[in-house]
Amino acid sequence: MANMNTQVLLRCRPMGLPTPDNFEVVATPILQPADGQVLCQTLFLSLDPYMRGRMSGMKSYADPTPVGGVMCGGTVSKVVESKSPQFHPGDCVLGYDGWQEYAISDASALQKLPQAPFPLSYYLGVLGMPGMTAYVGLLDIGLPQPGETVVVSAAAGAVGSVVGQIAKIKGCRAVGTAGSDEKCRYVVEELGFDACVNYKTQLRALKRACPNGIDVYFDNVAGPTLEMVLRLINTGARIPLVGLISEYNATEFPHGPDLMPVLVKRARIQGMIVSDHPDRRAAFMRDVSGWLGQGKLKYREHVVNGLGNAAEAFIGLFSGRNFGKLLVQVAQ
Amino acid sequence: MANMNTQVLLRCRPMGLPTPDNFEVVATPILQPADGQVLCQTLFLSLDPYMRGRMSGMKSYADPTPVGGVMCGGTVSKVVESKSPQFHPGDCVLGYDGWQEYAISDASALQKLPQAPFPLSYYLGVLGMPGMTAYVGLLDIGLPQPGETVVVSAAAGAVGSVVGQIAKIKGCRAVGTAGSDEKCRYVVEELGFDACVNYKTQLRALKRACPNGIDVYFDNVAGPTLEMVLRLINTGARIPLVGLISEYNATEFPHGPDLMPVLVKRARIQGMIVSDHPDRRAAFMRDVSGWLGQGKLKYREHVVNGLGNAAEAFIGLFSGRNFGKLLVQVAQ
Repeated sequence: MANMNTQVLLRCRPMGLPTPDNFEVVATPILQPADGQVLCQTLFLSLDPYMRGRMSGMKSYADPTPVGGVMCGGTVSKVVESKSPQFHPGDCVLGYDGWQEYAISDASALQKLPQAPFPLSYYLGVLGMPGMTAYVGLLDIGLPQPGETVVVSAAAGAVGSVVGQIAKIKGCRAVGTAGSDEKCRYVVEELGFDACVNYKTQLRALKRACPNGIDVYFDNVAGPTLEMVLRLINTGARIPLVGLISEYNATEFPHGPDLMPVLVKRARIQGMIVSDHPDRRAAFMRDVSGWLGQGKLKYREHVVNGLGNAAEAFIGLFSGRNFGKLLVQVAQ
Repeated sequence: MANMNTQVLLRCRPMGLPTPDNFEVVATPILQPADGQVLCQTLFLSLDPYMRGRMSGMKSYADPTPVGGVMCGGTVSKVVESKSPQFHPGDCVLGYDGWQEYAISDASALQKLPQAPFPLSYYLGVLGMPGMTAYVGLLDIGLPQPGETVVVSAAAGAVGSVVGQIAKIKGCRAVGTAGSDEKCRYVVEELGFDACVNYKTQLRALKRACPNGIDVYFDNVAGPTLEMVLRLINTGARIPLVGLISEYNATEFPHGPDLMPVLVKRARIQGMIVSDHPDRRAAFMRDVSGWLGQGKLKYREHVVNGLGNAAEAFIGLFSGRNFGKLLVQVAQ
């Protein structure tokens, strides 16, 4: 074990799209765990769009990361030293240790992970927060019925890819939007969606892809995609709103979509944050690991090596440079 | 009985705010009812903001009024001649006869009204479509809980005045927005709301009027009021969207509010059209007529005399010139 801990700090708050200057990589001594605590070495760090919100000073549903603090984030780690009877060196755990090589956590903040049959990194994606966001948002808020049309934005991403595949499992027509023709091909050919539209060039093609209108729109992005979708919704449409990626780097107060179609079509737009739904965790794990095991759910990761590359990879999230769930492999 | 029928037709579709030129008053012969039909003389015509939508050619939840057709609208009428065993001359009925002195309807489109204890005109307002919109939208979509804060726009109007008073009956804090200081005083002093804010001069005062945030916003208007409300909503807020008066005369595609607060606060915006909820009619009539009878619900009408004044009165709706439910008394 090294004596020093590499950490990535929030150096200053971004204006608009984050730049490398907003981050600072530092080396600090590795501390010792107190009673009830565990020292872990990070194996994988998850990079997710919501982290942009924590970099802002604005109050939200979670506290912002303080300037000078370690960037937050979900992690899969290996226990190095434990002062808790619950964990032993070598255990693999899910935690929220952030952008650093080593971290000390209260045992209560960690969750032991099985080493088989799925790769540990899956617990940051399809079997973790993004997968559960897809599961709860689609099934509990979207309420898809067989034969209905489900549209999801960022369809090649960690959440969207799961949404569309669950929609297919539930007997729906699944239509995605994504940011490149290559991603659209992947969404249709590999993930089995019925159609996928490149929102950068042909959002109007959504109408052709949804000949019977749209019953459920799982929204990860807001912006022009939501505006276009609202023109195509059917009566009683449900719109789980789980992300507004198109706005996260806005420097002016953004406008939203005209809501006239929400009235005319008696639609429902509902915000959803997965941490409100711990009661759904058991069903999510049972169903999604079952579908993965049966090959009904496909999943793709985009792994970047080393914390030194985390900032650049994170910035790339907002232009869709990743292809699959974005992770940093911090250690082997 | 006169031999001629005065009718107001849609002469041409408006661009923006309707003008008198969009309407044409004509005299046509009164026709004879066929078997199963009833000839009625209109006593009261209801004027409501939704009619602006029917004047447009755009497809919506109801068909537009054709150019040259009689303007549509809810009516209270007296039966003149009946070829249906269900109705007899002198009966008072609720119908949808539109802007005309006489009309022939299928008996199935009419509903007999009791002549006591409420004025017949109430069935176009507090005991009719606007009142039921308030009742269903607030109770079924807004789900107000005792102690919560309910905000309603157009609070002096036919729908809003009922929303706030039902909110009070249900143990909530009721806050209105309205378009003049006189209306705000009426809303607080006569209707018993806890506060009312003049949206033309002091929308920011909404924050002071809602010290514990906003749990339910019953939206009649959209526009800047909705934008302001979204900055003040509490976690889990419910927003029945029943009107977008601020947009009805828009000539450019309007923007909506930024939806970030809907995600952050896990709020729900849900469109509601009262005609979807016939199953709630009996409960509405029972509760609202009970509250009226007990003096718990106050109600104000703004009555204009004669069909010749209907167009001007209707246009005035959009600048809030009416004070109370707007009606045309077509005949005594």
